[in-house]
Amino acid sequence: MTLDEKLAQIVGFWEKSEGEAVAPLQGEFEAPRGLDDAIQDGLGHLTRVYGTRPVDAAERAAWLWAKQRWFVNETRLGIPALVHEECLTGLSAWGAATFPTPLAWGASFDADLVTRMGELIGGSMRELGIHQGLAPVLDVIRDPRWGRVDECISEDPYLVGTLGTSYVRGLQSTGVHATLKHFVGYSASQSGRNFAPVHIGRRELADVLLVPFEMGVVDGGVRSVMHSYAGIDGVPVAADPDLLTGLLRERWGFDGTVVADYFGVAFLQLLHHVAADLGEAAGQALAAGVDIELPTGDAYLEPLAAAVRAGTVDEALVDRAVLRALAQKEALGLLDATFEDEPPTDVDLDSPEHREVAALLAERSLVLLTNDGTLPLARDARVAVIGPNADRAAALFGCYSFLNHVLAHHPDAVVGIETPTVLEALRREHGGDVSSTPGCAVDDDDRSGFAAAVAVASAADVAVLVVGDHAALFGRGTVGEGCDRDDLELPGVQRQLVEAVLATGTPVVLVMLTGRPYAVDWALERCAAAVQAFFPGEEGGNAVAGVLTGRVNPSGRLPVSLPRSAGAQPYTYLHPTLGGDGDVTNLSTVPTLPFGHGLSYTSFTRTDLRVAPGATTSAGLTVTVTVTNTGDRAGADVVQLYGKDVVASVTRPVAQLLGYRRVELAPGRCVEVELAVPAARLAFTDRTGRRVVEPGALEVWVGPSCAQRETQAVVDLAGPTYPVTIDDPRWTGVTVR
Amino acid sequence: MTLDEKLAQIVGFWEKSEGEAVAPLQGEFEAPRGLDDAIQDGLGHLTRVYGTRPVDAAERAAWLWAKQRWFVNETRLGIPALVHEECLTGLSAWGAATFPTPLAWGASFDADLVTRMGELIGGSMRELGIHQGLAPVLDVIRDPRWGRVDECISEDPYLVGTLGTSYVRGLQSTGVHATLKHFVGYSASQSGRNFAPVHIGRRELADVLLVPFEMGVVDGGVRSVMHSYAGIDGVPVAADPDLLTGLLRERWGFDGTVVADYFGVAFLQLLHHVAADLGEAAGQALAAGVDIELPTGDAYLEPLAAAVRAGTVDEALVDRAVLRALAQKEALGLLDATFEDEPPTDVDLDSPEHREVAALLAERSLVLLTNDGTLPLARDARVAVIGPNADRAAALFGCYSFLNHVLAHHPDAVVGIETPTVLEALRREHGGDVSSTPGCAVDDDDRSGFAAAVAVASAADVAVLVVGDHAALFGRGTVGEGCDRDDLELPGVQRQLVEAVLATGTPVVLVMLTGRPYAVDWALERCAAAVQAFFPGEEGGNAVAGVLTGRVNPSGRLPVSLPRSAGAQPYTYLHPTLGGDGDVTNLSTVPTLPFGHGLSYTSFTRTDLRVAPGATTSAGLTVTVTVTNTGDRAGADVVQLYGKDVVASVTRPVAQLLGYRRVELAPGRCVEVELAVPAARLAFTDRTGRRVVEPGALEVWVGPSCAQRETQAVVDLAGPTYPVTIDDPRWTGVTVR
Repeated sequence: MTLDEKLAQIVGFWEKSEGEAVAPLQGEFEAPRGLDDAIQDGLGHLTRVYGTRPVDAAERAAWLWAKQRWFVNETRLGIPALVHEECLTGLSAWGAATFPTPLAWGASFDADLVTRMGELIGGSMRELGIHQGLAPVLDVIRDPRWGRVDECISEDPYLVGTLGTSYVRGLQSTGVHATLKHFVGYSASQSGRNFAPVHIGRRELADVLLVPFEMGVVDGGVRSVMHSYAGIDGVPVAADPDLLTGLLRERWGFDGTVVADYFGVAFLQLLHHVAADLGEAAGQALAAGVDIELPTGDAYLEPLAAAVRAGTVDEALVDRAVLRALAQKEALGLLDATFEDEPPTDVDLDSPEHREVAALLAERSLVLLTNDGTLPLARDARVAVIGPNADRAAALFGCYSFLNHVLAHHPDAVVGIETPTVLEALRREHGGDVSSTPGCAVDDDDRSGFAAAVAVASAADVAVLVVGDHAALFGRGTVGEGCDRDDLELPGVQRQLVEAVLATGTPVVLVMLTGRPYAVDWALERCAAAVQAFFPGEEGGNAVAGVLTGRVNPSGRLPVSLPRSAGAQPYTYLHPTLGGDGDVTNLSTVPTLPFGHGLSYTSFTRTDLRVAPGATTSAGLTVTVTVTNTGDRAGADVVQLYGKDVVASVTRPVAQLLGYRRVELAPGRCVEVELAVPAARLAFTDRTGRRVVEPGALEVWVGPSCAQRETQAVVDLAGPTYPVTIDDPRWTGVTVR
Repeated sequence: MTLDEKLAQIVGFWEKSEGEAVAPLQGEFEAPRGLDDAIQDGLGHLTRVYGTRPVDAAERAAWLWAKQRWFVNETRLGIPALVHEECLTGLSAWGAATFPTPLAWGASFDADLVTRMGELIGGSMRELGIHQGLAPVLDVIRDPRWGRVDECISEDPYLVGTLGTSYVRGLQSTGVHATLKHFVGYSASQSGRNFAPVHIGRRELADVLLVPFEMGVVDGGVRSVMHSYAGIDGVPVAADPDLLTGLLRERWGFDGTVVADYFGVAFLQLLHHVAADLGEAAGQALAAGVDIELPTGDAYLEPLAAAVRAGTVDEALVDRAVLRALAQKEALGLLDATFEDEPPTDVDLDSPEHREVAALLAERSLVLLTNDGTLPLARDARVAVIGPNADRAAALFGCYSFLNHVLAHHPDAVVGIETPTVLEALRREHGGDVSSTPGCAVDDDDRSGFAAAVAVASAADVAVLVVGDHAALFGRGTVGEGCDRDDLELPGVQRQLVEAVLATGTPVVLVMLTGRPYAVDWALERCAAAVQAFFPGEEGGNAVAGVLTGRVNPSGRLPVSLPRSAGAQPYTYLHPTLGGDGDVTNLSTVPTLPFGHGLSYTSFTRTDLRVAPGATTSAGLTVTVTVTNTGDRAGADVVQLYGKDVVASVTRPVAQLLGYRRVELAPGRCVEVELAVPAARLAFTDRTGRRVVEPGALEVWVGPSCAQRETQAVVDLAGPTYPVTIDDPRWTGVTVR
């Protein structure tokens, strides 16, 4: 291979599309030339063939097959391109199923269902000739002010790791490669601002942020990893060989490809200022272990070629990346592919099976925060449905959905999938009268609709207020990439709308369709009931209606703390004693509602927690607990096992999720759930830098959230201090008897 | 020495005093027995002999001399106790001068004056038989939500380091030992909450938080250091030998004593949970390098004795601490002291010289934020003085002042020093009518005084609104230890009071007597003028009146950014590109007013910045700049030299203070100021962990704040990458020609 042929294999190519930027600083980069001119030497990746504008999938597939044949037949090496696409909440393509946002996966605590979703997404991608999906996001939530929180699963690394690994397994079971992102640190940026510096120590990095990535690599066998844009303690990850090579490959044994986050190599020069030019940026990224530059070859083509020819970058580094890129293509069967088969012509990207999984996941993700009995709605109640998100399809979707990510820039295009709104679904499902008015927009100052809202509410038995976010990119929404917040009030005048309706005296059911948790203590105190729906996807309107009417018994649990205020951030439930309340500060940061909280239309007790004999530092422990549905209807509980290391060589969290299990129970029935906690889940980085399990007392409990110990025990972990290795299981089974 | 005699030398003894806690969790600890019973074996430190209740200094000195004679004559070893006391804003003793709070030192940018203050404080202490002062605080401000910000100097480590070192030199020139605190990390706690976990990497720790401590140790020759309560990345500093021994002693060459922050050893068990009992806590602290336990021997007496006898703590560690304690006593002359001289009977702790320095420092610390010409007040203007801090002496003082720290618990005691309020001073100094009403309290919801405030303002030509903080401890104030905030609005209904007065149409001059910067963009837009006074001390009322009337030409500069909002925190002007505004986030965190900002009644230009030839990585650089008073009255400018490393191996701040100098100039006069920037000021921790100066382009500029480049140059630092050592100067001279 010539140097140019090598470099061509480690870059992507993204045809310039119209409309506003969907990647940071996208406008700063020169428009790539037409594909045919650019890629005489072959191509590593075709970037977002389906996902940047509304194009008919079959039409686009025909274009793609032809293009791949061109690579096979018209380039010297005859190697097709790897096709990658976004697929966080479903394949990013026109007409493809759009599932709930990752925060909703977190709320479902349902790993199996996330696997099924991954299988469906992968199946659609495979059908369309897409080889790699840029998901899942395994950033552990550290600050709800950050705009990309809706792309993340939880503030607990174990929940992130298990659900993220489930997604990887589902997607990769179809032969499509998943991509863990953003490795690592992105979510811990200063004051929750996108791209801002990350202040974190090596211990917290290892014990919190890296945990899900380790699971995705080792347990999930993921085939690709994307570096994060973050600079951690001054070093941009894209230029950090300790993370991208030392940890990821040498310690964890990862042997796939590391891809750049879009423009991330160039950002070493443009934003981080650790490289004087693009050639130097390319050299640093390549040496660190970034194999493929995406979306296009801004640094890895001419600038890197010049650096190699000038001798400032060793060509062996190029070869290393090329070998990895080709190994991935080989694994995908691309080295032998001819594309002489016919492209798909009849693709159903939103089949009944897609809809069913989308509905189940949405239903299981809805969190009933409070309820004075107003929910489920009385069958004949006159219901006023008010609020900017009541009758807005876009309110059901996250920032990386095709609808909000792409279609928002093509206002004339039809949506391409069925997206019934909360209002539409409730009109269909509710027995009594349903009236409606929006009251206000998501994020402006206009209160002119308040009077109508008050009138409609006054004439109703119950007012359902559907408020929340609009997800979009770079300041165009209230949440999403580049849509950060320095307060955590509901955007615009939505709080004022809720307060105006509360003043009518009509009981208010608050439904929040959001991409982050908001500070709504004032509302929870005054509303009759409140439902938290993290962007629930194409079946989300139906799911919300199902919970409101009682068809669906809510079973979601908060995957994030419901915050007290923006000024109390950052906060995590995983804090040591001194991260909570106490005598040394006047200030409470106890969240409005704790991690793990969620009500049901039935009730549960958790009793008889027992720790099996033989709990040791190397074996971990096994806990059994009995869950009983003490109410009068079927429902699902999420059994949450928490632990606290009483004394350790470093400070440890006051509560840490050790295991969980979603169980369905008929009224009056009970079940014994056994949760095995592997040693690795108890491990932390000690003062010498080793990840160990230390012997001694461990408090364990089960309860309705991290904050309440309904049944508990203290176990004495026997054995010497145990250093965990990569061979120790991180995620072991759950048994339900 | 017996083990008990050894242990006695490494603990303090604090007689239980009445009133509310002045140290965290003070109430948790058993009341010590009477001194005579407790200390048969001798004693390391007598804790706060003068500073915990209002006692006549001469009376207390007589008690102390007698007690010391008792130690000399009645204990077997005959070693007197070392007497330590708080002295942050002046000696903490009844009737002692109380100077401006450290934030005000920062605003003055006046190292020489801080040295003079240190000399005066030390003189009083020496006179009273006090050997060690628990100041200065060298924590670099990282988050204005933290309650102890008023005890800190600045958000810039060089300003903290130079002024802190000046204090050390002043105090120690009298033979009294200073104590750097809190080593290290305390100010970077999560969400600005007292004691909360510190998320920080080793590079940021080295390049920001440790810088002033290194200066205080190496340049200041400080004789004692206090550990911080903080847990940094999971490891409590009190148990960290890398910091307390490896860095402090082995690398920096410190050979004094490390003292515990009050109860800090016990907190290893009680709050950090890294020790199972007090004996283990003692062993960890001792091994890390905490030599003296303060305030009393909770862990270092019985629990440590038991641990030594049980063999779990090596007695050699005790010996090491005892040797350091005795070496300090030897250096203080205590080993030969007999106390047969007479105790002082006629002590003037607030002499005219004290008052003069207090006045100068207060005057130079006042920051004129905005001014439309309303200030100075017209000689005959009818002035309404409104606000809860207008006529309140306590509003002039910080949390660690005797007045707020101690006298607040003794409401019947007289203050003991003259503390004219702003109102009193203005009545004395202003020619025209002065009317007044408080309008509201500092921190409650009562608006019943608004009507009177509006009436008084309406009848006046100008309304001077004196608002701000009340400094106190543990939730009893709006700022101070344990008085953190999760918003940065003026406390209580003060904003509403200002807005009510603004609505009268009478021009408003806002005077903020505070211990932290508040988010007051709304006020700066609407008020005719605004003055920021960080607790200005006993002469602060006169100083404010002097600025208002024009007797004093303001020359203070913001030592901290004036924040945008609590939800935008943490923020520092020392951010890399990605910590500021940009295309990747919608959110601006540009502060309301930048670090270094401050107006004058005259005007200045800074021109002709020149870099002397020979700038190298090892020698640093020398810059000259011409400052001209272009207005019509005498005034002082603070020449601020900033730099930006254009490309470096790690991310670097967009602006960094490299040098500064306060210069007084007659109208029309100019002066050339030469600022030498030593290599160490340019150094940072590179990717390999070395502190180095890298060659290449460095932008340097001088302007009215960090945000404005009035005159600038780019210098190419020649030479190879230079690793700085402890022998490199950190602070070199300034020449004014």
